[in-house]
Amino acid sequence: MNFNPNQKRFFIALAVLFVQVVAVAQTVTSPDKNLSLDFKLQEGGIPVYTLTYKGKPVVKTSRLGIDTKDVAPFTDGFTIKDSQQSTVDLNWEPVMGEQKTIRNNYNELLVTLAQPKNNNRYIRLRFRVFNDGLGFRYEFPKQNDLSYFVVKEEVTEFQLAGDHKIFWIPGDYDTNEYPYTTSKISEIPGLQKKATVEISAQMPIANPSVQTPSMMKSADGLYINIHEAALINYPAMSLNVDAAKQKFSVHLTPDAVGNKGYMQTDAQTPWRTIVVSDKATDILASKLILNLNEPTKYKDVSFIKPVKYIGVWWEYFVAGRSTWAYGKENNVKLTDDFSKLTPNGKHGATTARVKEYIDFAAKNGFDGVLVEGWNVGWEDWIGHWKEEVFDFVTPYPDFDVKELKRYAESKGVKIIMHHETSGSATNYERRLDRAFQFMKDNGYTAVKTGYVGSIIPRGEHHDSQWMVNHYIHVAERAADYGIMVNSHEAVRPTGLNRTYPNWIAQESARGTEFEAMGGLNPEHTTILPFTRLMGGPMDFTPGIFQLDLGFYGTGSKQHVNTTLAKQLAYYVTMYSPLQMAADLPSNYERFPDAFQFIKDVAVDWDNTWVIEAEPGDYITIARKAKAKDEWFVGSVADENSRTATIDFSFLPKGKKYTAKVYADAPDAAWNGKQQNYTIKEVTVTSKTKLKQYVAPGGGFAISVK
Amino acid sequence: MNFNPNQKRFFIALAVLFVQVVAVAQTVTSPDKNLSLDFKLQEGGIPVYTLTYKGKPVVKTSRLGIDTKDVAPFTDGFTIKDSQQSTVDLNWEPVMGEQKTIRNNYNELLVTLAQPKNNNRYIRLRFRVFNDGLGFRYEFPKQNDLSYFVVKEEVTEFQLAGDHKIFWIPGDYDTNEYPYTTSKISEIPGLQKKATVEISAQMPIANPSVQTPSMMKSADGLYINIHEAALINYPAMSLNVDAAKQKFSVHLTPDAVGNKGYMQTDAQTPWRTIVVSDKATDILASKLILNLNEPTKYKDVSFIKPVKYIGVWWEYFVAGRSTWAYGKENNVKLTDDFSKLTPNGKHGATTARVKEYIDFAAKNGFDGVLVEGWNVGWEDWIGHWKEEVFDFVTPYPDFDVKELKRYAESKGVKIIMHHETSGSATNYERRLDRAFQFMKDNGYTAVKTGYVGSIIPRGEHHDSQWMVNHYIHVAERAADYGIMVNSHEAVRPTGLNRTYPNWIAQESARGTEFEAMGGLNPEHTTILPFTRLMGGPMDFTPGIFQLDLGFYGTGSKQHVNTTLAKQLAYYVTMYSPLQMAADLPSNYERFPDAFQFIKDVAVDWDNTWVIEAEPGDYITIARKAKAKDEWFVGSVADENSRTATIDFSFLPKGKKYTAKVYADAPDAAWNGKQQNYTIKEVTVTSKTKLKQYVAPGGGFAISVK
Repeated sequence: MNFNPNQKRFFIALAVLFVQVVAVAQTVTSPDKNLSLDFKLQEGGIPVYTLTYKGKPVVKTSRLGIDTKDVAPFTDGFTIKDSQQSTVDLNWEPVMGEQKTIRNNYNELLVTLAQPKNNNRYIRLRFRVFNDGLGFRYEFPKQNDLSYFVVKEEVTEFQLAGDHKIFWIPGDYDTNEYPYTTSKISEIPGLQKKATVEISAQMPIANPSVQTPSMMKSADGLYINIHEAALINYPAMSLNVDAAKQKFSVHLTPDAVGNKGYMQTDAQTPWRTIVVSDKATDILASKLILNLNEPTKYKDVSFIKPVKYIGVWWEYFVAGRSTWAYGKENNVKLTDDFSKLTPNGKHGATTARVKEYIDFAAKNGFDGVLVEGWNVGWEDWIGHWKEEVFDFVTPYPDFDVKELKRYAESKGVKIIMHHETSGSATNYERRLDRAFQFMKDNGYTAVKTGYVGSIIPRGEHHDSQWMVNHYIHVAERAADYGIMVNSHEAVRPTGLNRTYPNWIAQESARGTEFEAMGGLNPEHTTILPFTRLMGGPMDFTPGIFQLDLGFYGTGSKQHVNTTLAKQLAYYVTMYSPLQMAADLPSNYERFPDAFQFIKDVAVDWDNTWVIEAEPGDYITIARKAKAKDEWFVGSVADENSRTATIDFSFLPKGKKYTAKVYADAPDAAWNGKQQNYTIKEVTVTSKTKLKQYVAPGGGFAISVK
Repeated sequence: MNFNPNQKRFFIALAVLFVQVVAVAQTVTSPDKNLSLDFKLQEGGIPVYTLTYKGKPVVKTSRLGIDTKDVAPFTDGFTIKDSQQSTVDLNWEPVMGEQKTIRNNYNELLVTLAQPKNNNRYIRLRFRVFNDGLGFRYEFPKQNDLSYFVVKEEVTEFQLAGDHKIFWIPGDYDTNEYPYTTSKISEIPGLQKKATVEISAQMPIANPSVQTPSMMKSADGLYINIHEAALINYPAMSLNVDAAKQKFSVHLTPDAVGNKGYMQTDAQTPWRTIVVSDKATDILASKLILNLNEPTKYKDVSFIKPVKYIGVWWEYFVAGRSTWAYGKENNVKLTDDFSKLTPNGKHGATTARVKEYIDFAAKNGFDGVLVEGWNVGWEDWIGHWKEEVFDFVTPYPDFDVKELKRYAESKGVKIIMHHETSGSATNYERRLDRAFQFMKDNGYTAVKTGYVGSIIPRGEHHDSQWMVNHYIHVAERAADYGIMVNSHEAVRPTGLNRTYPNWIAQESARGTEFEAMGGLNPEHTTILPFTRLMGGPMDFTPGIFQLDLGFYGTGSKQHVNTTLAKQLAYYVTMYSPLQMAADLPSNYERFPDAFQFIKDVAVDWDNTWVIEAEPGDYITIARKAKAKDEWFVGSVADENSRTATIDFSFLPKGKKYTAKVYADAPDAAWNGKQQNYTIKEVTVTSKTKLKQYVAPGGGFAISVK
């Protein structure tokens, strides 16, 4: 294992505490003793585990195992061949992150299970118990009697201890872009149909199921979050829901022929993670998923940098005056001469328009300008399961690559490439080297990828093993070319930004674009950090100032369902080292004082403090900018107004700072006077406890210098 | 349409003979009037056609149409909107071929069929009637009401006129490597199971079916060959067999989700071809399939050259002393360090061994040396549906790429690259640019590709639309790098070597390798030119001199089922601009007089004369070397001895030539004294009619200077 130069090994204690071959329960506790994991074999050699937190059951006796298609299953008939415990405590530094230094501290139980009935073929179960939760995985060591096998299903269960409140989206092989439903576990079957709203390219699981990260709260105040870490060469997991028993079980995404995973020893599953605490803030502060991912193997990470950007994007959703497509035609091929199309007169990504964005970016300190719709193929890109929609190298006739390269360089701004694949991953892979070479030749160092539509290879899914490997392949090839990747519609993240730090952000959830298509529920962004963001940074694309979309004169009655101040708060509450200011430059120019926060806010951090949090209700987070004595606070609320209390104890002691507070005006509301905000400056010290009003569906942002 | 510089348009007569909108039969005849095609609409607007040859029915009334999945089907409710006839007569020159100049002469009927019930949506049927047969296809012009559709099945029928004798292999989505069965059409259902021998990676069609090219002979002496031409962006066709009615219908290869073809207008199907004559020699001489393919669009064809080669290959099949794999292990990954494997001591593709082959090639005038097993991954390459088996750029530790580049160049010999994909086309595509760049960097100008195993994308088939497009993609990318391609286990050829002339040869049938695995039936190579080779050149890999495989002391009782002389004949009867001398150099050194023919024989030709032919019985062909006054004759027979008559009237008149005849000895036989041959020289003129004995399962070869 190679450690990245940025990751320093401060301390490792590795101690084999005992080795024994027994069938009684093995117990391992978290370093702080709050969590306790028990593992044992039931009658018939069936492996089971339980998890408790401060003596309360989190997961009651639950089965472990892997069912297979072609070899004998790994589900029963086991004996314990070996069992080892060890402890790790070290610190490491992410390339970018919420904290400069992350502590990785756990007690591990590694159990080797043999199957006497199958020639003593063996597997391993590795449990890591952190103070903030449990991770465990299956490992399949190379051995004479086990080289290849096909996973039919994973039988891992999560027998919960009650009918918890759960924040969930329905299980689906192709999309994560559902709105959240809040209910009891027992209510999921009855709500499944309603929760499964229409999404382009979806494949809902027929039985009651939820996606992970799955956020729950027990009646006695335990917060429980189930997800996975290090999803590599394996399909993504959803959870089958046995509502009557409050039992979840793993449901893997199948491939085109119904198989789940193709395995070759040495192999392992992703980690199954259970983050647990009696404080909701601990859930958001957890680095368990990152800790369970491998350090990066990249030798050079110098090209990986935080990005604050604007883009030719929101105007496609709201203004009604711009289109990705250049031509009026609705049937085009890559072999066509696109200069012969009939211009529709609304093409967004023109040389002139992009120059305006570059000017605005340069003037306001943005790193990049995303340009969507620059390349040929958008006239009929969607809905045809068409393989060769885009070639990733041919611009529309009104987009001058060379001139824009020159112009962007002269202004010190990077243009961000856009590779929409329309789900045709095969087409993207076969053109990938040429696409990245084109980027390199033309000065692009970051790409937004997109996977809108049914996947090709046909029969594969966004979340099946082949696609999981595809996204990683793209990240690795991008790294070879010194390129950062921001993927949209890819499989939900599982902390892989530690291993592939150039995969800097993902969408993989219902983001701001839906504010232009029906609107997001005001509580949505009080849930996302507890769900989607547990896996990694989200390119949520915040910063919409013009919240009434009727403004554009296109007859839209659509409103963005937040206050303006809440849009500012997102830059702190929705962590990403890549952050967009998504609105049109002209809208920012109308609100220069509020825009100042977006200009000021950092996107990479030395430290983070989760001050207040309750899923579905509110979140308040403070962060210190990377290598700067600047702090930023963000707070968001659901549809109910509230008063937040900001404890400034994160500030260095004994110094006075000026805090600039961007807050909702008293009459502001997500469904009322959205754009009414106040800006005031207050003096704060580490002893300050500031009370701050938050409007219904509102929020606030604070910068501290 | 761009014409290649090598293709000269000598004469085109394009005449619109009549335009009318009628429902009566449209008739178009061949230029020589022997063939007559009738097209009409039956009641219900169902399109049907018939074909006659010299007044005899070839195809009786048969339906035409395309069934669709997502739009209204193109099967009935048609009216004739427009009908045009035209004539073409031109000559063109293939980059390489059996003839320097090919005449393309046909009468065409182009019918536009509208569907009033579907908003007058229309399609076209294009029939081309040549003197040697019929080609027709469906065309889907771009129109407002038709952009995209999915083909469910093609309903094209071939209602034959009797219970013909047929030379067939069973329909299968994944392999063409079956032995031929000769039977009546009515006997196919009863023989289907027996004919479906085991092949690695096969997917036989459940109902009675045959593959194309399908060769038939009627009781009254008509030879009928059904195949397809220009298979591009469409799945390959098999033929469902209605044995009772002697009716065939198209059976397209499905994709992973059961769809057959994804179409976007302008679109067309491949041509359905019926080559017909009362002389078997005309079938072999037909250039109809090539004529129905498009001229190449390649601007540079200078890198495309005929290749006579040897290779590190046959020793893997027979000697028992060599392996593709380097290590003893049977579980390896591309990420492994292969220098740490335990050498099995039998690795074939070592630097030293390859140098011996290079020496032999240089000494005997071969252009290239194929090297299989040079690259890491062979330890467990087969049978696991594994995606990343090979990387195409990493040699085994005992194969020195740089040194062999130097050595081969110093000897004026090209090493031929080997890209076995193990069926993992996705892995090949994602690595293709790197693989070809590696070849370019190291002086390789030709590659043998292989597709052994179940296809990835999983659920796709060797013959489904996606893979059809894959092979063409590989050919086109190879052309970008100046590389020639010889594909094995790819879909059967359909004349695409005209359009992609760097796709110089294919296997796609049961070739010489099976002589080491059970043996080929002696009649096999009297059938292949009437079936597999109708579509294009075959890399049959002839030239085995050591026919008793017991020779190698490995206990094998296997014999190659030919005489030695027949192996020489193959260089003439099995057309390919890429020809291997497949046996071990040491075996050629034992028979230097016979080996002289292989050294002498040309592989590219000014002209070809099919002198005698009867499918399943015998073939005698003469060819003139390209740009040389040298002629070569080859003759092969089935298990029965015979006397061939070679009419030398193809020679220039009034000159005497020396013909060197390599023939079976009187006591030779495929199952007897296989290596007994005679070599004699005779003087011949254009008036000579030479009688030549052919042993059972034997053959002869003649060189004329």
